[in-house]
Amino acid sequence: MGFVLWGFLTDFFTYETTKSVVVKSWSVGIINRIVQLLIITYFVGWVFIHEKAYQSSDTNIESSVMTKVKGFGYLQNQNQNENYQNRVMDVADYVSPPQGSGVFCIITKLIVTENQFQGRCTETGKRFICSSDEDCQKHVGSNLSNGVITGACLKNSNESHGMCEMEGWCPAENDAIKIEPMDVNTFTIFIKNSIRFPLFNVTRGNFPPTMTADEIKKCKYHPEDNPLCPIFRVGDVLNYTGQNITELLSKGGEIGINIQWECNLDLNIEKCIPEYSFTRLDAPFAKNAVSKGYNFRYAKYFKTENGTEFRTLHKAFAIRFDVMVTGKAGKFNTIPTMINLVAAFTSIGLGAVLCDIILLNFLKGAEQYKAKKFEEVSEAQIEASIAQSPGSQLSLKCMKSSCDSGALSLNTYDQPL
Amino acid sequence: MGFVLWGFLTDFFTYETTKSVVVKSWSVGIINRIVQLLIITYFVGWVFIHEKAYQSSDTNIESSVMTKVKGFGYLQNQNQNENYQNRVMDVADYVSPPQGSGVFCIITKLIVTENQFQGRCTETGKRFICSSDEDCQKHVGSNLSNGVITGACLKNSNESHGMCEMEGWCPAENDAIKIEPMDVNTFTIFIKNSIRFPLFNVTRGNFPPTMTADEIKKCKYHPEDNPLCPIFRVGDVLNYTGQNITELLSKGGEIGINIQWECNLDLNIEKCIPEYSFTRLDAPFAKNAVSKGYNFRYAKYFKTENGTEFRTLHKAFAIRFDVMVTGKAGKFNTIPTMINLVAAFTSIGLGAVLCDIILLNFLKGAEQYKAKKFEEVSEAQIEASIAQSPGSQLSLKCMKSSCDSGALSLNTYDQPL
Amino acid sequence: MGFVLWGFLTDFFTYETTKSVVVKSWSVGIINRIVQLLIITYFVGWVFIHEKAYQSSDTNIESSVMTKVKGFGYLQNQNQNENYQNRVMDVADYVSPPQGSGVFCIITKLIVTENQFQGRCTETGKRFICSSDEDCQKHVGSNLSNGVITGACLKNSNESHGMCEMEGWCPAENDAIKIEPMDVNTFTIFIKNSIRFPLFNVTRGNFPPTMTADEIKKCKYHPEDNPLCPIFRVGDVLNYTGQNITELLSKGGEIGINIQWECNLDLNIEKCIPEYSFTRLDAPFAKNAVSKGYNFRYAKYFKTENGTEFRTLHKAFAIRFDVMVTGKAGKFNTIPTMINLVAAFTSIGLGAVLCDIILLNFLKGAEQYKAKKFEEVSEAQIEASIAQSPGSQLSLKCMKSSCDSGALSLNTYDQPL
Repeated sequence: MGFVLWGFLTDFFTYETTKSVVVKSWSVGIINRIVQLLIITYFVGWVFIHEKAYQSSDTNIESSVMTKVKGFGYLQNQNQNENYQNRVMDVADYVSPPQGSGVFCIITKLIVTENQFQGRCTETGKRFICSSDEDCQKHVGSNLSNGVITGACLKNSNESHGMCEMEGWCPAENDAIKIEPMDVNTFTIFIKNSIRFPLFNVTRGNFPPTMTADEIKKCKYHPEDNPLCPIFRVGDVLNYTGQNITELLSKGGEIGINIQWECNLDLNIEKCIPEYSFTRLDAPFAKNAVSKGYNFRYAKYFKTENGTEFRTLHKAFAIRFDVMVTGKAGKFNTIPTMINLVAAFTSIGLGAVLCDIILLNFLKGAEQYKAKKFEEVSEAQIEASIAQSPGSQLSLKCMKSSCDSGALSLNTYDQPL
Repeated sequence: MGFVLWGFLTDFFTYETTKSVVVKSWSVGIINRIVQLLIITYFVGWVFIHEKAYQSSDTNIESSVMTKVKGFGYLQNQNQNENYQNRVMDVADYVSPPQGSGVFCIITKLIVTENQFQGRCTETGKRFICSSDEDCQKHVGSNLSNGVITGACLKNSNESHGMCEMEGWCPAENDAIKIEPMDVNTFTIFIKNSIRFPLFNVTRGNFPPTMTADEIKKCKYHPEDNPLCPIFRVGDVLNYTGQNITELLSKGGEIGINIQWECNLDLNIEKCIPEYSFTRLDAPFAKNAVSKGYNFRYAKYFKTENGTEFRTLHKAFAIRFDVMVTGKAGKFNTIPTMINLVAAFTSIGLGAVLCDIILLNFLKGAEQYKAKKFEEVSEAQIEASIAQSPGSQLSLKCMKSSCDSGALSLNTYDQPL
Repeated sequence: MGFVLWGFLTDFFTYETTKSVVVKSWSVGIINRIVQLLIITYFVGWVFIHEKAYQSSDTNIESSVMTKVKGFGYLQNQNQNENYQNRVMDVADYVSPPQGSGVFCIITKLIVTENQFQGRCTETGKRFICSSDEDCQKHVGSNLSNGVITGACLKNSNESHGMCEMEGWCPAENDAIKIEPMDVNTFTIFIKNSIRFPLFNVTRGNFPPTMTADEIKKCKYHPEDNPLCPIFRVGDVLNYTGQNITELLSKGGEIGINIQWECNLDLNIEKCIPEYSFTRLDAPFAKNAVSKGYNFRYAKYFKTENGTEFRTLHKAFAIRFDVMVTGKAGKFNTIPTMINLVAAFTSIGLGAVLCDIILLNFLKGAEQYKAKKFEEVSEAQIEASIAQSPGSQLSLKCMKSSCDSGALSLNTYDQPL
């Protein structure tokens, strides 16, 4: 019993290494080393140093954005609306929504339709011309741009043609009028962005805690001179996008303020700082004739003395700012390092494929190299060998001594790699 | 000196290849090739072609969504509120918030409580019955659903029971009344979505730039007939979710409009188009009795002539639409390709494990194969060999000539793979 | 022809296995097995069990959040504004925006400036002192905090100094006054969060469908006692962040309610439940003197009898809650399993590097082991061998019989791994 166990132990604690042929040939030797050098260079230079394959990375960033706009603007040329003539607009007037979130609009132009009451009237602007009620009754309930057709044709008694009556908020909006946009270039946007990489539990703010209140209040963001200042001049932001500012102000648009965090947490955490970039988000639609710019409608509601509700409708042309935060943090981690190291080592071995092909086929003396590398054993040989000495006995005999036959039990040699 | 260097160089520029045993056996040979074929098929078919393991992928999409709703609705049966009887509602009335962001609500039902003033009154609806002030004083300050209990019991002189007085906005809201929801099926939603894959710097819009303004205005989205039209009929969207529309309109709900970008950037960029899907987001809560549907309260504020503020409270039942954008772009990249290729090549080698087990254990003549494959060397042999010829001299002798002992310096042979 | 094909087939269906040297040495054998054991333990314990390298994971979560706040608050000490004295504030008053999205503010303090008309007046609070119009004319158009300087110096006839006139909404806001914040601790937040992992098409809600309406209405979230209750007391949430609540209520702040989904989809889906955590999002800016807290301005608009618009400006100090949802789901997948298994197997082979170094350099009898492991073949030998028997003939001779030279064609042996 103890004897069998001892035999098992000696069999187990052995070490198996591949038998190798060392080819002392300058040509293959140099090729071999060059291929290995190339593979090592690739892995060290590209995979490990450039692509940082030794790091595990987290792109799943948690972000919170707070914005605050400052500045005053003049609404001009609003001849049709007394309330809006030469109005000084402040933040509470032109920022929407007001909560200071990461997505906000700065209104640049307002088409205002005051004192709308529920009722019946004709549409302004585009007209649906009728000569009698029958013309309009075909379309009862269909939408005009400001209300629903009722079926009556409204015309002056001395005219042969009129317009269909509509039901809705009257008078109807006339958005064909021309208005000069408000100048928003001097407004400033203050952005407070705090992020967290949950995988590494790293929290960062978009300006350093060492910045004093005074420094922050006075600075203006500039890509080179002041890349960490969190205050952005609207005019600068629009300029950075390379767009036509006049058109942007007049038709509205969507601007992306991208805050990118690229953090190598193996370095000093102080180097984990944001980078800002500015794009026009609706750029892919620049070639489409439809839906250029950006506008939306909202209403303010009022009540008359006797309690009837009426409203002021606003068609607001605005620049929408989307503060978008993306980030990637990398930190040394053993798993990707191991996997890539193993891939690197294995790849070095792959260089041997090339050398083997050259050695065994194209080199002078290829046949001799083959003879050295390969040892052949055919079924015929084995059968002949079995005929000479019965197999099973050999195995038993060898278990107990160190014979040259090399017969060994399965559990010892099943790790060929 | 030069001699040592030369020796070092000849040692360095050598090529080491494993010595192999070639088994000319049909059974093992066929098994070997079949296993290799299976592994190659798996890697080529599944890993490379199906799972695109040769690409690096980016799921970290940057997205900007602009929405615009169109349509008119009738608010009916609002007997209690003169201002809201048969009102024609337009976008400025029923879309909230108005800015046209990716998350917006279409209000389908409004419970309106007009002319609320700060003051004291009794709650409407669910009643907290009292017979004297003592009953109410126990609960002073506790919340009713519309205000806070003050401690007085309000009752008519001829009645024995009354209701506790509350403080807050009076009169209190009565949300138990039944109202028909507005029909929103014919409304349309226009969605403008531009995305960017920052890793590849690829920007795309959800409709092709070749689409004319006219085409866009006239089209309606349909999964098969018109999968790229950016205009969605609300009724269609609700239908696609497979939900009970009547209940949705009456109780409100949350609908997800998912825009999925699955882009293979190795192909033509024009094939990088969005795919829309529609789900009811609050579906996981369908079985919960509580919090069915979706509603929220908001107020419009007014002032009387003498400056006292009062308000109109709205309990709005709405359908909230969440435009959610997900995406994945893949592009050929050398790192994943290398790693997967190495894994593939190495895996092919793993097939040898199986063949070795068969060859060395289950095949006729297994012992003979073992004898061929394994060469044994034991400590006893080595010691005997050392006794015959002292080791260190052998090594020196061989460095200078090509002897058969194969003893070589460490730096030459430490890459066994 | 058939003969050549047969030869090709016998050559193809062969099996090549490395020739190995089995070293029966206790020292190297034990080192070999220990190194293998360490590598296997690392891969099984860390890579597979701890890091779940056999799973493909999805962090790209789709999430929809609905929130509902409940509670009443008192606005006190608002001596300057009759409309806001001892006002009972309900949800429609203090929650902004009202739609119940994942980001919402609870207003804790309001600085109200009633009855602002467009016009000219002097700024309140910080003063820009002037003795004559000339002083002010230098700054025409510059921003004060409430409007734009017009250039006139307003002073009483009996005073030598006055203040520059400004244009904008008058009277100007005076935000230096001290106000007690509203007590919001007893308010409750109900959070409904449904998520989806698009990769696995798994949908989950943040409370179990088995929870009855009554259970939900009565419960309060507690990390240990009630981790799945979706109703959060505001006071508790503020406490969990470990911040100074008095300061938070007075200056405002941003609170992150993080819902984390960590789902192992190989286990029961019922174990895929959310975990809540609470942080102060503006914590990275705690040391900055500027921009402490969180506030924003909004206005309510009114009309006089004769149609002039005026407004009530609110500077709202608020606590902004960001419900942020992150998640990760993992599920068994063959690709990462294969890649990691191959890495594991290959890594076991790497143990041989260490053993080879020991065996061939530091062990007694190292030279003898080298002699056994390496077989040397130099160009000189090959040339000598060619001189004896012309190479090309040997190759042809061997193709037809099983000779010991082992020369074989390329297509048979080009898979060295």
